[in-house]
Amino acid sequence: MDKIKVGILGATGTVGQRFVQLLENHPWFQITELAASSSSAGNRYRDVCNWKLSAAIPENIKNLIVKNCVPDLDCKIVFSGLDAKVAGEIEMDFAKAGYPVISNARNYRMEQDVPLLIPEINSDHLKLIEKQKLNRNFGSGFIVTNPNCSTIPLAMVLAPLNKKFGVEKVLVTTLQAISGAGYPGLPSLDILDNIIPFIGGEEEKIETETKKITGELINGKVSPSQFDLSAQVNRVPVLDGHLMSISVKLKKDFELEKVKALLKNFTAIPQEQELPSAPKNPIIVMDENDRPQPRLDRDAGNGMSVVVGRIRSCPVLDVKFSALGHNTIRGAAGAAILNAELLNVEGYFSEF
Amino acid sequence: MDKIKVGILGATGTVGQRFVQLLENHPWFQITELAASSSSAGNRYRDVCNWKLSAAIPENIKNLIVKNCVPDLDCKIVFSGLDAKVAGEIEMDFAKAGYPVISNARNYRMEQDVPLLIPEINSDHLKLIEKQKLNRNFGSGFIVTNPNCSTIPLAMVLAPLNKKFGVEKVLVTTLQAISGAGYPGLPSLDILDNIIPFIGGEEEKIETETKKITGELINGKVSPSQFDLSAQVNRVPVLDGHLMSISVKLKKDFELEKVKALLKNFTAIPQEQELPSAPKNPIIVMDENDRPQPRLDRDAGNGMSVVVGRIRSCPVLDVKFSALGHNTIRGAAGAAILNAELLNVEGYFSEF
Amino acid sequence: MDKIKVGILGATGTVGQRFVQLLENHPWFQITELAASSSSAGNRYRDVCNWKLSAAIPENIKNLIVKNCVPDLDCKIVFSGLDAKVAGEIEMDFAKAGYPVISNARNYRMEQDVPLLIPEINSDHLKLIEKQKLNRNFGSGFIVTNPNCSTIPLAMVLAPLNKKFGVEKVLVTTLQAISGAGYPGLPSLDILDNIIPFIGGEEEKIETETKKITGELINGKVSPSQFDLSAQVNRVPVLDGHLMSISVKLKKDFELEKVKALLKNFTAIPQEQELPSAPKNPIIVMDENDRPQPRLDRDAGNGMSVVVGRIRSCPVLDVKFSALGHNTIRGAAGAAILNAELLNVEGYFSEF
Amino acid sequence: MDKIKVGILGATGTVGQRFVQLLENHPWFQITELAASSSSAGNRYRDVCNWKLSAAIPENIKNLIVKNCVPDLDCKIVFSGLDAKVAGEIEMDFAKAGYPVISNARNYRMEQDVPLLIPEINSDHLKLIEKQKLNRNFGSGFIVTNPNCSTIPLAMVLAPLNKKFGVEKVLVTTLQAISGAGYPGLPSLDILDNIIPFIGGEEEKIETETKKITGELINGKVSPSQFDLSAQVNRVPVLDGHLMSISVKLKKDFELEKVKALLKNFTAIPQEQELPSAPKNPIIVMDENDRPQPRLDRDAGNGMSVVVGRIRSCPVLDVKFSALGHNTIRGAAGAAILNAELLNVEGYFSEF
Repeated sequence: MDKIKVGILGATGTVGQRFVQLLENHPWFQITELAASSSSAGNRYRDVCNWKLSAAIPENIKNLIVKNCVPDLDCKIVFSGLDAKVAGEIEMDFAKAGYPVISNARNYRMEQDVPLLIPEINSDHLKLIEKQKLNRNFGSGFIVTNPNCSTIPLAMVLAPLNKKFGVEKVLVTTLQAISGAGYPGLPSLDILDNIIPFIGGEEEKIETETKKITGELINGKVSPSQFDLSAQVNRVPVLDGHLMSISVKLKKDFELEKVKALLKNFTAIPQEQELPSAPKNPIIVMDENDRPQPRLDRDAGNGMSVVVGRIRSCPVLDVKFSALGHNTIRGAAGAAILNAELLNVEGYFSEF
Repeated sequence: MDKIKVGILGATGTVGQRFVQLLENHPWFQITELAASSSSAGNRYRDVCNWKLSAAIPENIKNLIVKNCVPDLDCKIVFSGLDAKVAGEIEMDFAKAGYPVISNARNYRMEQDVPLLIPEINSDHLKLIEKQKLNRNFGSGFIVTNPNCSTIPLAMVLAPLNKKFGVEKVLVTTLQAISGAGYPGLPSLDILDNIIPFIGGEEEKIETETKKITGELINGKVSPSQFDLSAQVNRVPVLDGHLMSISVKLKKDFELEKVKALLKNFTAIPQEQELPSAPKNPIIVMDENDRPQPRLDRDAGNGMSVVVGRIRSCPVLDVKFSALGHNTIRGAAGAAILNAELLNVEGYFSEF
Repeated sequence: MDKIKVGILGATGTVGQRFVQLLENHPWFQITELAASSSSAGNRYRDVCNWKLSAAIPENIKNLIVKNCVPDLDCKIVFSGLDAKVAGEIEMDFAKAGYPVISNARNYRMEQDVPLLIPEINSDHLKLIEKQKLNRNFGSGFIVTNPNCSTIPLAMVLAPLNKKFGVEKVLVTTLQAISGAGYPGLPSLDILDNIIPFIGGEEEKIETETKKITGELINGKVSPSQFDLSAQVNRVPVLDGHLMSISVKLKKDFELEKVKALLKNFTAIPQEQELPSAPKNPIIVMDENDRPQPRLDRDAGNGMSVVVGRIRSCPVLDVKFSALGHNTIRGAAGAAILNAELLNVEGYFSEF
Repeated sequence: MDKIKVGILGATGTVGQRFVQLLENHPWFQITELAASSSSAGNRYRDVCNWKLSAAIPENIKNLIVKNCVPDLDCKIVFSGLDAKVAGEIEMDFAKAGYPVISNARNYRMEQDVPLLIPEINSDHLKLIEKQKLNRNFGSGFIVTNPNCSTIPLAMVLAPLNKKFGVEKVLVTTLQAISGAGYPGLPSLDILDNIIPFIGGEEEKIETETKKITGELINGKVSPSQFDLSAQVNRVPVLDGHLMSISVKLKKDFELEKVKALLKNFTAIPQEQELPSAPKNPIIVMDENDRPQPRLDRDAGNGMSVVVGRIRSCPVLDVKFSALGHNTIRGAAGAAILNAELLNVEGYFSEF
């Protein structure tokens, strides 16, 4: 079977590089186009991409000529790692032109007719696509988004808890890696031997996105979850992996052991369908009392598992624990690829 | 006036070194004795102390001969930076022998007749000393302790809030510096590009100590505060300065501006008495949205101020904010010195 | 074909863990025994090993019971990641008992009848084994060592230069990663925001080992190279990868481009024999002016390649450049495994 | 006596901030003007300066209105912390307008009629000023520069060696702090857990500047030193303090102890004249075998001393050692201030 041709928008950036790395040898998708800003367009990828991953640029990619981000690319779908400043217009152009856009940008995440997708949690939200096409007069094109890098680990853990026990209140404090800020991103003078207790817009994103993702689809509309959620964010001198300390109040009676078992055994459509990028366990529960740790655990499940540890009682709410997700894999490029894999098996690319 | 002769127990350790540094040029106290483990005793301080501070060892200290930690030292009071493994016995020996022991160790903090003192908050708890002497048949000796390094910034902020608005619930997530683990402490392989979401016994200390400190003295007994408190701790790759994300539920109505003003204007006995180590402001409130930061703000008030920022509403509890304290100054040696200064002006060393 | 059974001495340490990781799925060798200090012996590996690698402990290894380091292990050869304090005696016991000992410890490196082996450079030194057996009355046992972690990248680059142009003088300054100090190794308080310009014994090891490795075998004896070599070492806050700045004076005329080509095209027996752990290129030459960098380049050739960059003229000597080697792979466990692979194809294990 | 009014060009940058900090409470100079790019001009310093030092902005400075960098400032002399991209034109404008310009920028350092000054080494080079004024038709204005941040520690140590023993060859490898790159400077993703073996133009600056500084003034012209000098530079994850490994070949016979004594006892005009910023010892020699270390030693002599350690024989050249200098104090703002102090006592500001 021929692979589906894909293009990467924003291919030279931090997230774009991850797309390139993760799609090397992908069984279903094949990169045929790389697009970036006009300052890069026309040059070989290797010459304009300030490649920052320790794995080398794939051989078949490094000499590709970077194109402009205009919808005349030779590919069936596009992955977008674009910066939010330009993503709005460009992604819309591609959707209008008939390309399914699998986006990591924040611009359309909260639009009522755009799925904000975590395949393990809210695959039914894909039904919004039909409405989106109607609303916007799209042909074969549409936009599907994945959440913010710190929203994903939080939502992944809250979703099964919410379904089984009902989540009432959540407090989360994040310790976020520097790669989340892109490149050049954070100046080293700001973060060496330091922490910054602020990331612009991040707390709001966590608070609103989590409720949409875990919300129910009712009459073709996502009704956001009603639990209270408060986030405090911090940037820490760690390369990859967002760690978070979470406390949750549940509506129903629970036992800690049942919470652990619920998370440990959680699987969903991506696992059942054996999607290529789906981790065996979307949530890994560790029993050691000093885990998860970003450097040791961020690559669990090839960076696609959320790792949870220190599940214990909370004297104020009910349960508290630490959770970790790889911010540029499960929290960005890997999330988008898993979204595309789900879309593919669900037939959303079949119009071609 | 002659200065009061003081000895340092555990003088070669991380906290001991801070005692030495902070007491250089102290207007009331003068180091006459340095004591440490038997492996150091008999040697010059400069030869056995693995000095880790950027300021050099004070000239008049570096050639002092280190003594054993036995109560025949030529000094009136002792500061203890001893490790908890040995502090219990040694501190008791000194107290029995008539030395006031100003301790940073955890061993006696939660004893009912031992003050766990933050001079700005619970100076009335010093009345426990009288009871302590009776209980234990001490003469001129006694033990006064300061709290754990992460308890202090938390308690400093909660105390005025509790007094004015009544604290009902508190959730705190800490991001603690490596110097809090002493020396050699944390292996570099554990913490470079990493976070450890666990510090043994720390969450329990924060939860119990904070309630004792903010508790009321009733009939010669401290009645711990009744608010709910939950702590999640993390070790981060920062040298000095414990940062924490805090959410609080208050009993009474409040306005954010009044909370800010309350903290900003908070002063107490150490400021009124102009104790030498007392910062002008025990709490500094910053308005910038990305502060406090450990590297930039830990030295505020010579490391004796707690720096608070990002005071804002919490969607789950009432108010949330970040707070920072220098863990080896206000959180350890500086705390003990301020305790000794208060004891001195209150006449507790006058028996000599 | 059945795999050769191998045991790991010092299996719980930093180098021991790398042996375990690198031997997972090895085509020729299979770990059957793990041995460590008596405090670990008798327990499952997973329970006594403070595993520090981001890849998880291999499934078939984690429940193995750790043995004592005594020569009654069920294996044909042993890899030693032992600390130098105990390696001397234990390795000798195993060699006497008939085990080929492939050692990473420094104890026997400079013995006249022990090969200090880098398979790409001095495979002829294996002839010392025969002499060693005679000298020491060994049966099937013997000891082969690999060099110090910072010696390897240096020697790898000097050897072809020496052969072709004659090396006359070498100055090297190293910037060594913290994993080189083992675990717990360097306290974090010593190295965060810091450099230590000293590593005990390291400069001497670099200076003497390099000359032995590049020396000629004459009448059954290694005659060390006669070039002058001066090393200055520094420990830097980097996890893995020793970077070094090297200046070399050559005896013969040279052109920079020929030096580059020589290094770039260098291959030797391990490449010809396609040994499983041999990198395609023992030396990778980069043309970018800011490479090699430890984080980006240490994993080149699965951590078995030495990466060289910035080859240019030196105003004092002749040529200067930067070189990088992964200190716990090519500089330790990987080096030993490649040694064993060479020994195997050369028939040194055939007595079994 | 009234203080001399000074202005800071480039006041909001990394070096400009150090000027502001170091000139607080200066006995001779008083900041009356802050100037920066037009995007900052017209605003209060506190509002446009992204202040990165742990000491707070001086009270009397923070509300000053930032001016444009045009020569109508109310001050007698200007310190320039300007970026090299704009320093050339602006500094020339100020000199023409009659302002002595004490510059940290590289633009005029190698001009034949501009002193490249280290007051302890080449105060006689100030005679170039007269020639400069003639050449360029300056009135009371002129330009004096200080060397690059890594040149200074090197030159400081080489100068007395050169004078006494004659320096023949020098190899230096630097390990340079991130603050040397200014702000935002180095992206954190580039340097965390990493080293970059390249800094644009830095090796050339070290090689040429050092020879000019240590050169002799002959017939009103600086004749650069003739020794061979080769530099290899590296950027390391350290905040402040450039460490370097240096090897030197001397022309005359020497003993290591005499080299040590020479450096240890070295003093010059700034010490004799007791200039306010002059350290008691321009060179501090440490005997501990693991010093100097950036974090522990960079603040020696208030950041104005060069700290040397590990003086020992070099098997290739003659002597090798490590040297450390604080790159933004002795290597930048502090250097310029010491230059101004020397100019003042030498009467170069007396025309006013």
